[in-house]
Amino acid sequence: MVALSNLSPGRIWDTSRQSRAQRIAAGSTYARGKLVAPKDATKLLGAVIRPGDRVCLEGDNQKQADFLAARLAEVDPSVVKDLHIVQSGVVLAEHLDMFEAGIARKLDFSYSGPQGEAIARALKAGKIELGAVHTYLELFSRYFVDLTPHVALTVARCADRDGNLYMGPNTEDSPVVIEATAFKQGIVIAQVNELVDKVPRVDVPGDRVDFVVVAPEPFYVEPLFTRDPAQITETQILGAMMAIKGIYEPYGVKRLNHGIGFNTAAIELILPTYAERLGLKGKIATHFALNPHPTLIPAIESGWVEQVHSFGSEVGMDDYMRARPDIFFTGRDGSMASNRMYCQSAGLYATDLFIGSTLQIDLAGNSSTFTKDRIAGFGGAPNMGSDPRGRRHASEPWLKAGREAASLGTVLPRGRKLVVQIVETFGEKLVPTFVETLDSIELAKSLDLALPPVMIYGDDVSHIVTEDGIANLLLCRNAYEREQAIRGVAGYTDVGRARDARAVEGLRARKVILRPEDLGIDPLDANKSLLAARSIKELMHWSGNLYDPPAKFRNW
Amino acid sequence: MVALSNLSPGRIWDTSRQSRAQRIAAGSTYARGKLVAPKDATKLLGAVIRPGDRVCLEGDNQKQADFLAARLAEVDPSVVKDLHIVQSGVVLAEHLDMFEAGIARKLDFSYSGPQGEAIARALKAGKIELGAVHTYLELFSRYFVDLTPHVALTVARCADRDGNLYMGPNTEDSPVVIEATAFKQGIVIAQVNELVDKVPRVDVPGDRVDFVVVAPEPFYVEPLFTRDPAQITETQILGAMMAIKGIYEPYGVKRLNHGIGFNTAAIELILPTYAERLGLKGKIATHFALNPHPTLIPAIESGWVEQVHSFGSEVGMDDYMRARPDIFFTGRDGSMASNRMYCQSAGLYATDLFIGSTLQIDLAGNSSTFTKDRIAGFGGAPNMGSDPRGRRHASEPWLKAGREAASLGTVLPRGRKLVVQIVETFGEKLVPTFVETLDSIELAKSLDLALPPVMIYGDDVSHIVTEDGIANLLLCRNAYEREQAIRGVAGYTDVGRARDARAVEGLRARKVILRPEDLGIDPLDANKSLLAARSIKELMHWSGNLYDPPAKFRNW
Repeated sequence: MVALSNLSPGRIWDTSRQSRAQRIAAGSTYARGKLVAPKDATKLLGAVIRPGDRVCLEGDNQKQADFLAARLAEVDPSVVKDLHIVQSGVVLAEHLDMFEAGIARKLDFSYSGPQGEAIARALKAGKIELGAVHTYLELFSRYFVDLTPHVALTVARCADRDGNLYMGPNTEDSPVVIEATAFKQGIVIAQVNELVDKVPRVDVPGDRVDFVVVAPEPFYVEPLFTRDPAQITETQILGAMMAIKGIYEPYGVKRLNHGIGFNTAAIELILPTYAERLGLKGKIATHFALNPHPTLIPAIESGWVEQVHSFGSEVGMDDYMRARPDIFFTGRDGSMASNRMYCQSAGLYATDLFIGSTLQIDLAGNSSTFTKDRIAGFGGAPNMGSDPRGRRHASEPWLKAGREAASLGTVLPRGRKLVVQIVETFGEKLVPTFVETLDSIELAKSLDLALPPVMIYGDDVSHIVTEDGIANLLLCRNAYEREQAIRGVAGYTDVGRARDARAVEGLRARKVILRPEDLGIDPLDANKSLLAARSIKELMHWSGNLYDPPAKFRNW
Repeated sequence: MVALSNLSPGRIWDTSRQSRAQRIAAGSTYARGKLVAPKDATKLLGAVIRPGDRVCLEGDNQKQADFLAARLAEVDPSVVKDLHIVQSGVVLAEHLDMFEAGIARKLDFSYSGPQGEAIARALKAGKIELGAVHTYLELFSRYFVDLTPHVALTVARCADRDGNLYMGPNTEDSPVVIEATAFKQGIVIAQVNELVDKVPRVDVPGDRVDFVVVAPEPFYVEPLFTRDPAQITETQILGAMMAIKGIYEPYGVKRLNHGIGFNTAAIELILPTYAERLGLKGKIATHFALNPHPTLIPAIESGWVEQVHSFGSEVGMDDYMRARPDIFFTGRDGSMASNRMYCQSAGLYATDLFIGSTLQIDLAGNSSTFTKDRIAGFGGAPNMGSDPRGRRHASEPWLKAGREAASLGTVLPRGRKLVVQIVETFGEKLVPTFVETLDSIELAKSLDLALPPVMIYGDDVSHIVTEDGIANLLLCRNAYEREQAIRGVAGYTDVGRARDARAVEGLRARKVILRPEDLGIDPLDANKSLLAARSIKELMHWSGNLYDPPAKFRNW
């Protein structure tokens, strides 16, 4: 018993429980049972939140606790101040107003969406002290280690008087946020659309929820994953054909995640046409970790898709998913059930391929969506777009990719995730996608970030697909080959024009680079007739009118 | 609308829901409400399970649905057969009896514990068709993609008549298993110790649970994480000192996971003594993703530990955790709350260091606990003992490790996880830990496995600690240096004796190898007086008698 002298006999071990009891008592002034009137919400927040608290104000990828955000922005900053905001999505104006007012000071987050430029400005002006930009999964993980929230402000469709919450299809981040908060003696406050006698299903048990406020308006949800097929270009269709013929087919990719761009929407829309003619039904793209993309409807209706687990929901898709329980995860109430933590984990460990688009790719294959003036956030892409080195279960695509990478000289055989970047050589406004140096390197310098923000590191990328060809980086033997493989599919960009023509031809001879013709694809075939649906309206028809597109996508 | 012709207008989209309704109806014959008498449990299972079903029979790291396991082993194998078992732990005799009887045929699992040899025998005899051996996190992930259970047989401390479940400290895998099953129209059956009017807290909402059986005996829990300090050797204490002085201190490791061996127990026990004298309190080892190891008690009581999130519980620790809510996650009922999925994710993404022991290490640093005759399973180590390439938040230890690894010539700066293997050069029965070739390579050949089972790949390992020294693999510039660094700390094993003495001295000069004396450590100081507790009884005293050791650890 050498060190018993170190013991602090007077130490109190339940300061968090005592603090919680005091906060609950203070908040209860404004509550009847757990119910707080909307007019008292600001006072409630002022009573339960303390300076310096870590606060998660959901703030997800899609759904927003917008009423509570507006109320928190109204508290007296001389009382509630210096908060440490720990939430995945910082996308509302109110999220930044709090920093402006001094209510909040430090920020740890994942995704910024429309607020990317405002966050960069606030950082430069010293209004925000940046903790870090995370992927979703690592932020959720830190909730259990060193970023546990003291207060969680969550959002649900309805609650009963015991505080049981029903999120329906938009469960998203809530279960993990609430578990970390409630089980570490934090305070959980829920904004709900309505109060009911009995919730349709219990997404979060009431004994984890302290206060419930019925908001005057339903919570805001952004239709982030709706891509209008009418905007898909023929170049994107060509890229989609190449991805299917050059990657999905030879590797036999069944379990996968798609990014949210038009490139991957094009893949979804030519499964029932182009891939059908290739005889690939049942052989590729059967199991998805994916939000319910409306552009997936034709593939589902044509029997391509066996199962989809989702991070969150998508506006207008509720009735469709309810009618397709064999495909989607649905609760006993019939509506879809999502879970961002579980689905991100599935995207990391249980899929064989991630494919997504990006803004910039450098000569080593590193990519970024951060620009000089914009902190875009990471979201989930770096998590799913990385080789999970802790994976131990084998699958055919994973073993084949591993064999290709093994030519690099590893001793033991090992599998490898397929991580595909699918881009056009020139992006919007004809800005080249391929660059010598990522803009995010300059951003990192100007903001004094610990590391330049990279969405996906080049050594995690297995393939780059452009209208110019596919570069298989697994087969490159050294950095020079990798650079030339990338230049070789970079088209008429400066990066592409600076290729070593002989090296590129050598790579093509070794099938490190595949041109459309090498895959038997005639670019002239890449036209809109290949799209199973060419408009939002056609998606709606495919769904038997179960898909109910948001107003902004209805142009008829 | 090119492809509407592909539509199957007659397709039924709720076969899973219909199947569920039929199973529930069949099972309800034996139920009053959700309650089924123990004597009817076998009949219930026969009524709701169908041939070929994917079944998760929990089967966790610690707690076991042992009553349901025994009942499932009793079903008529002409009716219930060819099951595909998808569960993390295969540790009971009944788990294997089902394969012997033909009730089960295929197996996907994570951890085998005491059944490792029996599984290997059954594989060789063709009694088990092996899907794959997983880490916990990837098996849980596959529950949402391609291994979704049709039936989950779970286990809880108590239930109410609505099926609300209370798992208390042993929540473990249950929430993720039940979410995947219930939300994909599966059947959830819970074995509970008792039926109550109101559960102390709701760990799983009742609307996800179909049937409840009160078992005649409380469920079995294995005290897997209890290490008797009396069995810690002075060699292990020396290794622990070196880990603290040579790794924890220079990197400033605060967020970490420890393996379950005596080596890491020694580290826990010298925090309040050795590390205290080094002035490291508050600077290292403050936040753990860890089961409630009894050997952590002195460090907690001495104020070293700020927060612990746990995968599961540990027998005898319940009252202690209940009394330490500032340290552990506890529910509103006061008892600890664990969650294997969340904690594994924390161990992957929110810690800067994993340190664990292993049976064999080869010349490239690959390690394995699989032997020629034993399928040990992976558990969680490969997940936590890998560099999570999707991580984007920075910390000092991670950046420093990344800078060291960058000497290898990566273009962009990047962080790196610390993955430490701490071993003695000779293990039990003086079998050398360091080998030219892992036994698991022969195992893989004899069982025709897709890949040799490797617990942690060498390129994920940052440091190897033995009584002979620390090898920093991050600083090795090529495969030869790595091999010599490993030989250089392999002591008098054949691997160690075959070192290139000049190369090893060069590595020592560059601080790639650190000997105890290079760290200012006198091996003679490594004695049991450094252990804050030298017995289970002293741990109990440290805890103020709140820790209640299991009988098998009480020798007084």
